[in-house]
Amino acid sequence: MEAELKEMLNDLDSLKQSLPDPSNLASSILKLQSRVEHLTKLAKSAPVRRTKVQDMSAEVVDSNPYSRLMALQRMGIVDNYERIRDFSVAIVGIGGVGSVAAEMLTRCGIGRLLLYDYDKVELANMNRLFFRPEQVGMTKTDAASQTLSDINPDVVLESFTLNITTVQGFETFMSSLRNKSFRPNKEGSGVDLVLSCVDNYEARMAVNQACNELNQTWMESGVSEDAVSGHIQLLIPGETACFACAPPLVVASGVDERTLKREGVCAASLPTTMGVVAGLLVQNTLKLLLQFGQVSPYLGYNSLKDFFPTMEMRPNPQCSNAACLERQKEYLLVKPARDAAIIAKMEAEALSVPEGPLHADNEWNISVVDDSEPERTDATSSDALPDGLTRELPAADEFQKFPAAEPATATFDDIEELRKQLDALNAD
Amino acid sequence: MEAELKEMLNDLDSLKQSLPDPSNLASSILKLQSRVEHLTKLAKSAPVRRTKVQDMSAEVVDSNPYSRLMALQRMGIVDNYERIRDFSVAIVGIGGVGSVAAEMLTRCGIGRLLLYDYDKVELANMNRLFFRPEQVGMTKTDAASQTLSDINPDVVLESFTLNITTVQGFETFMSSLRNKSFRPNKEGSGVDLVLSCVDNYEARMAVNQACNELNQTWMESGVSEDAVSGHIQLLIPGETACFACAPPLVVASGVDERTLKREGVCAASLPTTMGVVAGLLVQNTLKLLLQFGQVSPYLGYNSLKDFFPTMEMRPNPQCSNAACLERQKEYLLVKPARDAAIIAKMEAEALSVPEGPLHADNEWNISVVDDSEPERTDATSSDALPDGLTRELPAADEFQKFPAAEPATATFDDIEELRKQLDALNAD
Repeated sequence: MEAELKEMLNDLDSLKQSLPDPSNLASSILKLQSRVEHLTKLAKSAPVRRTKVQDMSAEVVDSNPYSRLMALQRMGIVDNYERIRDFSVAIVGIGGVGSVAAEMLTRCGIGRLLLYDYDKVELANMNRLFFRPEQVGMTKTDAASQTLSDINPDVVLESFTLNITTVQGFETFMSSLRNKSFRPNKEGSGVDLVLSCVDNYEARMAVNQACNELNQTWMESGVSEDAVSGHIQLLIPGETACFACAPPLVVASGVDERTLKREGVCAASLPTTMGVVAGLLVQNTLKLLLQFGQVSPYLGYNSLKDFFPTMEMRPNPQCSNAACLERQKEYLLVKPARDAAIIAKMEAEALSVPEGPLHADNEWNISVVDDSEPERTDATSSDALPDGLTRELPAADEFQKFPAAEPATATFDDIEELRKQLDALNAD
Repeated sequence: MEAELKEMLNDLDSLKQSLPDPSNLASSILKLQSRVEHLTKLAKSAPVRRTKVQDMSAEVVDSNPYSRLMALQRMGIVDNYERIRDFSVAIVGIGGVGSVAAEMLTRCGIGRLLLYDYDKVELANMNRLFFRPEQVGMTKTDAASQTLSDINPDVVLESFTLNITTVQGFETFMSSLRNKSFRPNKEGSGVDLVLSCVDNYEARMAVNQACNELNQTWMESGVSEDAVSGHIQLLIPGETACFACAPPLVVASGVDERTLKREGVCAASLPTTMGVVAGLLVQNTLKLLLQFGQVSPYLGYNSLKDFFPTMEMRPNPQCSNAACLERQKEYLLVKPARDAAIIAKMEAEALSVPEGPLHADNEWNISVVDDSEPERTDATSSDALPDGLTRELPAADEFQKFPAAEPATATFDDIEELRKQLDALNAD
């Protein structure tokens, strides 16, 4: 707009010089000139973009957007922070969780982000972070690309305005995940991680299908319809349960979710719960990609009681997803070597840790059930939900009924067996 | 800018009509007109603000910014969501946590926000959420007011560009908290809650002093220098420990924090940890103000292990803060009635809950010590931090040394005594 206004000033100057009778017109033109000068000042205060940064530097100067991130190396948290520029992350669903996850990864300087959504920004989204009222009417992918490229032009952004649950949308989704142009030498697919931030079962099943087919590690996230609980979950095809192996703790029970909106009913949402879930999701992502801390296989968030259950889920050998069964077979082939490594690690740990109580068998009473029978959490009378909705997470009370020897962590018989083998070894 | 351009078009029209010789000038002016028309189109795509909303409605339409919040009532989570418009919240420190907390409260439609900071936006802040590169150089209070009023013009924003640790700054801080113009009938101070989102000990002590003097409930928050843990804490003068009663688990040990920055060293920070801490802080705020769920007295976040310790801290009768001792005396006067109520509630609960193990005495080994001896968490060899810094939270391992009968919650002898009295009553 600045160049435009400069040209206008030049035009006005030449207009002035060509005037035959400058009496009346001169003052009009002076008035116009001062107005244009004012406009120029206004235009100068409009957004400017920061320039790209060639290399991430740890230098502590106010102008370095990466100083606080590179400090993670000096603090001994991360070995090589700059590796983050090599990674591609796909985010499916740019809503209350996905948009914040995208902003966090952008500010962390992720190499490449792929964004998928088909929806438009509405004023009704303003109770969650990220989108702004002036973006109402834009597609979420366009609005997100605009904001994110302003925040960090170093990130390679690719956005796809499509619905992954349609045949065409799913095909484009698959081919975009396969595309290796960003890092041609990468093994497997073209992305390092897929984050599912969608709000319905159908879309989660589509992400699950794609990731099982591509042998692609992904993370699932969700927030309950009553806005006060949520979860994140890591899914590694063949190694952990896939989304079809174990029914999600969160599903609208049988009711077509689209009818909810149509009938003038909407789910509640809060920027707090979604911000926390996005934060836990991206923290888990950073831990996985940059190899620090412990990556959580599942982490729940019950905000009413500030309770954070964790657990692990094995794949279901009767899973209805054919690609999952393929991945399970492949995993079983490499399993003996991995088990040996786990036992060796446990032995090493056992030597340095004092004796304590071991897990009780299946202390959390968790069972893998067929996905044709979604697990229902009975709503208690005091916490009743409308018909067709179930709580995403059981209340903390329900977990607390089972006394825990360790913080809320449940594992499956698989690991139990390993522990028994370990005990046998230690008894020798 | 649109009005400005419209006037310019009018001016050009009258200029055209007053022309004595329209030959050459006419085409110049036509050119100018088309340029201004183009500018008008550009200006129309520039930010527009959403209009104010008189009453919060639960109507499910795309244009309702509050539909997803009012749904909390229908879901049975909150009795009266619209009450949020009555509340004033003061946020001290508009950095990585405070800015996100302010945005969350703004999007939730809080009545009034008071913002305090003296710092300016720098590119080095871009690794945390909220501020944008085009705001570099603005004060954080100005930049925040700009963004927040665009997001939700219904919120009454008051910003104070000052340092509360100076004499003048502290006085302005105090008088702004006392100001009751927003809700003249309110008891106590003019705000419902103060959120401390500062990054240093001195500023926390200033907030503590102000809140003790005003008998003002507040919440403290913090993130460790290594960016991977944080906490929130509720402080009720006289009832809970004040910030001077118990040394914070987080302090830079003895080193003047300002020297850290000066010497080319900076703390690490992550948008994830800060987003989670802001989310937990504002969630606790919503629970306190709108009376739902359980308000956490203290909640830690150890992101490396996804461990969330909780505890309660009683006031220290030897606290060095005179105003705290005053509040403790006042609280002791009303305590007998409150204890009776707690016992009655526990009895009612005991009738409906099966017998289980009670707390072991001081199972977490937590003790209240004088603030002249800050508690030190010894850095382990594998997790060593640079000189002058201590971890904000002990690693999860350290907590796990003490087997827990219940999830990580510690209470003090005070409540223990109540439980003993309850046992005695039940034994009758």
